[in-house]
Amino acid sequence: MTEDLNTHMKFMQEAIAEAKKGLDEGGIPIGSVLVRNGVVLSRGHNRRIQDDDPLMHAEINCIKNAGRIGRYSNTVLYSTLMPCYLCAGAVVQFGIPKVVAGESHNFAGAKEFLEEKGVKVINLNLKELKDMMEEYIDTHTDIWYEDIGSL
Amino acid sequence: MTEDLNTHMKFMQEAIAEAKKGLDEGGIPIGSVLVRNGVVLSRGHNRRIQDDDPLMHAEINCIKNAGRIGRYSNTVLYSTLMPCYLCAGAVVQFGIPKVVAGESHNFAGAKEFLEEKGVKVINLNLKELKDMMEEYIDTHTDIWYEDIGSL
Repeated sequence: MTEDLNTHMKFMQEAIAEAKKGLDEGGIPIGSVLVRNGVVLSRGHNRRIQDDDPLMHAEINCIKNAGRIGRYSNTVLYSTLMPCYLCAGAVVQFGIPKVVAGESHNFAGAKEFLEEKGVKVINLNLKELKDMMEEYIDTHTDIWYEDIGSL
Repeated sequence: MTEDLNTHMKFMQEAIAEAKKGLDEGGIPIGSVLVRNGVVLSRGHNRRIQDDDPLMHAEINCIKNAGRIGRYSNTVLYSTLMPCYLCAGAVVQFGIPKVVAGESHNFAGAKEFLEEKGVKVINLNLKELKDMMEEYIDTHTDIWYEDIGSL
């Protein structure tokens, strides 16, 4: 269990690095990595603003960046924030068996839907990420509500 | 009701044109249009093969092509095939209230999930589309199963 937690924290750090990269680009600070057998297959971050693309959530960007890998068995999707229905839909459709989220304080996401569909969901509940997202939402409220389709 | 059906058939023809465009490009023949107040906001088709992008389903391509429209109230998403969980997830997250599908014979999709989330789903159940998709699946079986995450 502790070993698992150390592994999850290691890959979550990579997702956090992506979130910060997005913020540096003027984007929404949400990052993601896709891992298989202890190897990072791809990285991604939210690019709504950078690409003017409403669907370019961090997880979508990350799965896209992995390319046409065909099968997603044994993969784990890390995201700094609990996935929304769009990203959870991708997880369910492509059979990604496990999702590790950094926090769900700022956005409940589609955790129940993922679990109903048999996806294992782990929430690391990290204060660093809660604070980062909370500050972003406070200072970019309209962009945030646009991103989650709640304008 | 007849007027509605005529309207749906008119916009489905535009989605079918997109599906055929995709097929002509060597892609998977699934097309989509997003409509608001009787006006086509955007068109799209599956571009998995063309863009080497596993997430570029027709509906995702169509919603992306509409750009950052902010609110999706009063929109209708047309697709030649019943949307999968990825595309249904986008519909639910962004609050698209209605989906019109051309058929669901070749792919049951996420109709129940959409309806559970309050989305109105209409299935036109068109023989032309069943036949087109069936022929594609018969002749491109691996690509089809890759596209729906069932390899």
